[in-house]
Amino acid sequence: MTSGKINVSVENIFPLIKKFLYSDHEIFLRELISNGTDATLKLKHLTSIGEAKTEYGNPIIEIKIDKEGKKLHIIDQGIGMTSDEVEKYINQLAFSGAEEFLNKYEESAKDSGIIGHFGLGFYSAFMVASKVEIFTKSFKEEPAAHWTCDGSPEFTLEPHSKTDRGTEIVLHIAEDSLEFLEEFKIRELLTKYNKFMPIPIKFGTKKEALPKPEDAGDDYKPEYLEVDNFINNPNPAWMKQPTELKEEDYKSFYHELYPSQFEEPLFNIHLNVDYPFNLTGILYFPKLGSDLQIQKDKIQLYQNQVFVTDNVEGIVPEFLLMLKGVVDSPDIPLNVSRSGLQADSNVKKISNYITRKVADKLKALFNENREDFEAKWNDIKIVLEYGMLSEPKFYEKAGDFVLYPTTENKHYTLAELKENLKDSQTDKDGKLVVLYASNKEAQHSYIDIAKEKGYEVLLLDSPIVSHLIQKLEADNENLTFARVDADHIDKLINKEETQISKLSDSEKESLKTSLEAVIPKAYSVQLESLDSEATPFIITQPEFMRRMKEMSQSGGGGMFGMGNMPEMYNLVVNANSELATSILQAKDDAQKELVKNALDLAKLSQGLLKGEELTAFVKRSFETLK
Amino acid sequence: MTSGKINVSVENIFPLIKKFLYSDHEIFLRELISNGTDATLKLKHLTSIGEAKTEYGNPIIEIKIDKEGKKLHIIDQGIGMTSDEVEKYINQLAFSGAEEFLNKYEESAKDSGIIGHFGLGFYSAFMVASKVEIFTKSFKEEPAAHWTCDGSPEFTLEPHSKTDRGTEIVLHIAEDSLEFLEEFKIRELLTKYNKFMPIPIKFGTKKEALPKPEDAGDDYKPEYLEVDNFINNPNPAWMKQPTELKEEDYKSFYHELYPSQFEEPLFNIHLNVDYPFNLTGILYFPKLGSDLQIQKDKIQLYQNQVFVTDNVEGIVPEFLLMLKGVVDSPDIPLNVSRSGLQADSNVKKISNYITRKVADKLKALFNENREDFEAKWNDIKIVLEYGMLSEPKFYEKAGDFVLYPTTENKHYTLAELKENLKDSQTDKDGKLVVLYASNKEAQHSYIDIAKEKGYEVLLLDSPIVSHLIQKLEADNENLTFARVDADHIDKLINKEETQISKLSDSEKESLKTSLEAVIPKAYSVQLESLDSEATPFIITQPEFMRRMKEMSQSGGGGMFGMGNMPEMYNLVVNANSELATSILQAKDDAQKELVKNALDLAKLSQGLLKGEELTAFVKRSFETLK
Repeated sequence: MTSGKINVSVENIFPLIKKFLYSDHEIFLRELISNGTDATLKLKHLTSIGEAKTEYGNPIIEIKIDKEGKKLHIIDQGIGMTSDEVEKYINQLAFSGAEEFLNKYEESAKDSGIIGHFGLGFYSAFMVASKVEIFTKSFKEEPAAHWTCDGSPEFTLEPHSKTDRGTEIVLHIAEDSLEFLEEFKIRELLTKYNKFMPIPIKFGTKKEALPKPEDAGDDYKPEYLEVDNFINNPNPAWMKQPTELKEEDYKSFYHELYPSQFEEPLFNIHLNVDYPFNLTGILYFPKLGSDLQIQKDKIQLYQNQVFVTDNVEGIVPEFLLMLKGVVDSPDIPLNVSRSGLQADSNVKKISNYITRKVADKLKALFNENREDFEAKWNDIKIVLEYGMLSEPKFYEKAGDFVLYPTTENKHYTLAELKENLKDSQTDKDGKLVVLYASNKEAQHSYIDIAKEKGYEVLLLDSPIVSHLIQKLEADNENLTFARVDADHIDKLINKEETQISKLSDSEKESLKTSLEAVIPKAYSVQLESLDSEATPFIITQPEFMRRMKEMSQSGGGGMFGMGNMPEMYNLVVNANSELATSILQAKDDAQKELVKNALDLAKLSQGLLKGEELTAFVKRSFETLK
Repeated sequence: MTSGKINVSVENIFPLIKKFLYSDHEIFLRELISNGTDATLKLKHLTSIGEAKTEYGNPIIEIKIDKEGKKLHIIDQGIGMTSDEVEKYINQLAFSGAEEFLNKYEESAKDSGIIGHFGLGFYSAFMVASKVEIFTKSFKEEPAAHWTCDGSPEFTLEPHSKTDRGTEIVLHIAEDSLEFLEEFKIRELLTKYNKFMPIPIKFGTKKEALPKPEDAGDDYKPEYLEVDNFINNPNPAWMKQPTELKEEDYKSFYHELYPSQFEEPLFNIHLNVDYPFNLTGILYFPKLGSDLQIQKDKIQLYQNQVFVTDNVEGIVPEFLLMLKGVVDSPDIPLNVSRSGLQADSNVKKISNYITRKVADKLKALFNENREDFEAKWNDIKIVLEYGMLSEPKFYEKAGDFVLYPTTENKHYTLAELKENLKDSQTDKDGKLVVLYASNKEAQHSYIDIAKEKGYEVLLLDSPIVSHLIQKLEADNENLTFARVDADHIDKLINKEETQISKLSDSEKESLKTSLEAVIPKAYSVQLESLDSEATPFIITQPEFMRRMKEMSQSGGGGMFGMGNMPEMYNLVVNANSELATSILQAKDDAQKELVKNALDLAKLSQGLLKGEELTAFVKRSFETLK
């Protein structure tokens, strides 16, 4: 038996890095700037605890393009490295630099915000560079070092004359990566990944107009000054304490995050927790517009101010993915599968924390300014309704702030709804019947009839509303929902007032026969003895079948296959109406004509008179007009 | 100056593999089965050229779960390894095994289908295993070897008594990966990644009923046989020659690929090219259903029969992403960014090849059976119309097969359309005016009017149609499109027939004044002296504004900000109609009533009478009825 150490064959590690390690070559710049940031924060820490005798000052990181020389420079003013350290951290494949540092200075380093998460970062340079040079001068009193490597495992290391502290990385950009010498490309990368990193990042210069002198004449031409152009905000809003921030600060950070977004956010939720996991961030409820831009501006995930991804699925609860903003946490494992994320206990806790914070904020907003909350309801309802259906913990809290608006623009909580409606809308079996409409325009005539009875009608127009009311019915005894066109109003809220019929039974029989001779089989005729002034013909669509069909169509509920069922309609005819009497008395063609015309009008009210039938109806009506 | 070799620190390579290398842990099984397939195909090749003296036989790969022992076994009957080879390929981090083999046997190995693309594959085992064992017996006359490693770089290697040729990998599944001991989970992975791999893969057994004996009595109970359960089809349709396959074979492969899809595909396109790149595959045009399932069944990318991904964006032209099927090519670079894909010359050629093949197939289908092609038009039009807009090369060929259906269900090519309509629909300026409707129901009365004039009306109802006709107009001189409700029909196709007015100029002036007193400002009143039988009131919506608005709403065209413009309507009043005379003669309230009622009817025809207005209209009409 032999035993030994597995030998990683270095000839092959560079192509490996290039091909496999990162699917996205562009992250090399993030990695190198992270290293520079790291080196700078280390210096800050060491000076703060007196271990480095140097002045910390106001260090920056600079990015320079040398297009002619096909080089890209990344320059920091951080801790630097001695020759020995280059040997140790670079030549030994620097996985563990930051980790080792953290272990050594564990306690005091905790708050210094050292990044060091992107271990192998430095070598990602070889994804875009055919040759890499390092010029580095440590804060220690030792000569600077110059390291060169052309991507093969051979390197050279020699002393260098550099005297200013810090590290300069020079990438000799490979022929297949020349795009990274374009200013717009580098600017794009910096904006994507480094916009909020903690050390100022300089990239080129910009012109700034000098103030106009007081004694300037009319022919004064403004003078410009070339100033350094910094691309990042090292102190973004989410890293501050909520107490430091005003409403305007949150709004202006929203636009800083999404520069192409012109709408104001509705409100924000500041996340800030240290234990049992570390998380900061700001979430925004956006104003839902019709434009698609809003879908591009997703929640961004950062780790210690470094952008990681804008795919936060699995981290942020699903119903909150429509929100905007930033989540920053070093405790979220990267590079794991979705099922891996779901299994991670920190991720679960983070997700629950976010749900709770959002619910708390909604409750506070509701309590502080109900009027304002009601005004925003239309923009936030989809998120909240979806949350009620998908997150039991959110559903539990929803009673405190979820609203049910009426067609008259009143807004009730569920408790208020029950309280306000119970006297007028409880039926003979003790069930409270909540009437609702899904479309104020299309169901106008039905809403009108309900209002004439003194009933209130909710306006529930989200696509998932059938699922929501199904759940509310299941969880609230003696509460039932009915869409306003589900039956005649006296049947929807049945109070057992006796119907007095003007017609005799045989007259009714005769009326029904006349009707069924003309009305297509698709409608089942339902004769009712209603108020003589009530609409003579109404088409209704029974609640249960329609709701099951809707649930089946919007997915995840209802009954299997119901989505493809045909629509079911009833035709309610008011036997006490004058029109019913007219029909009864009319003969042959005149009778048929009368029934057909009345059916057309009922279909018009329900939006069912279309195409050829509508054209014929309009033509006939024009004839009558003239 | 010193120089040397970069030393990869092995202590850190295992966590590196585990954390960074693959974002998705589950691919370990694909990697190990790929290695086994590789080893088997190598053996096949060596026996075929006489270098291996062993019998190739019918080798299989077997996957076994040992739930109690927390182990997963992957067993092949391939080429095996000697102790020296384990030392070389495993202990030296086996990046290059397949590559080296290919170099050695380059010419003869080309067609043996050796996979070897997942270089580092073996070490992915450590993503889910705390300890890995290899038992391997080479086809050469040397003792078997047993290798063990617990994830630290230390390994042991010793001789073993195994006598049957091939390699058995034993994974001691780690505590955080126990899901990979569940039968359903392994079955899911095998079905996802290995369904069409070239060596039979055995996973457990299944029961098969024995045939009923001829002399079986009434009380016969069927007997079952335990047989090996193979999960893959080693010889999938796309690897065959098109000449070997019948229509049914293509259909049954469609259902093999998408077991939950019940619809039949409309037709298929077999891809098969060797030079200048290697590509096989079958694409299907699906029947577009209302169900969402269809979005899940995407085009799958394979490399040498190993599933890679179902995200083929950047490889398949965008307009064809709605198709279904398989693309198999070793020439597509994996693990590169989208911009990397776009820059790759092979990928560009592949994408162009696919576009060309699809266009050729469509042309052939059109020529072979036009009736059938027309019947399928509704299901394929979106793809084709989008292709015309997004791929210039496809647009060039589209004239041969793209259809323009009429509301009467006739189908024209563009050339036929011009030829057939030019006599009747050319206006006084020599422009051929193509009339179209976007909705047969909603625009019924307008279509009717056009038909009465003897005109043909196209039915163009795709969401991108406004972009398409804009392009057609730009590319075809003297061709113009107008929606059938864009103006009065005599204005849409203006033939300069003189309008004879029944009314004097002063009467017209008086009529206009009366109308404008009642008609809301939103409609601009347009008096026309038309046939006295023509509809008295029509609401029209000018073509240009509506089209720009639609283009702006569906994105990428039109004019900036037009999407939010209000709708613009005209009211065309036929001054020669009897109704116009009646209005002129009526007085005060009666006149107003007449105009209001006529406007209501015009609004009904254009779908603009809604909500409260409609309710009032219906109520009034019921009054009139009785």
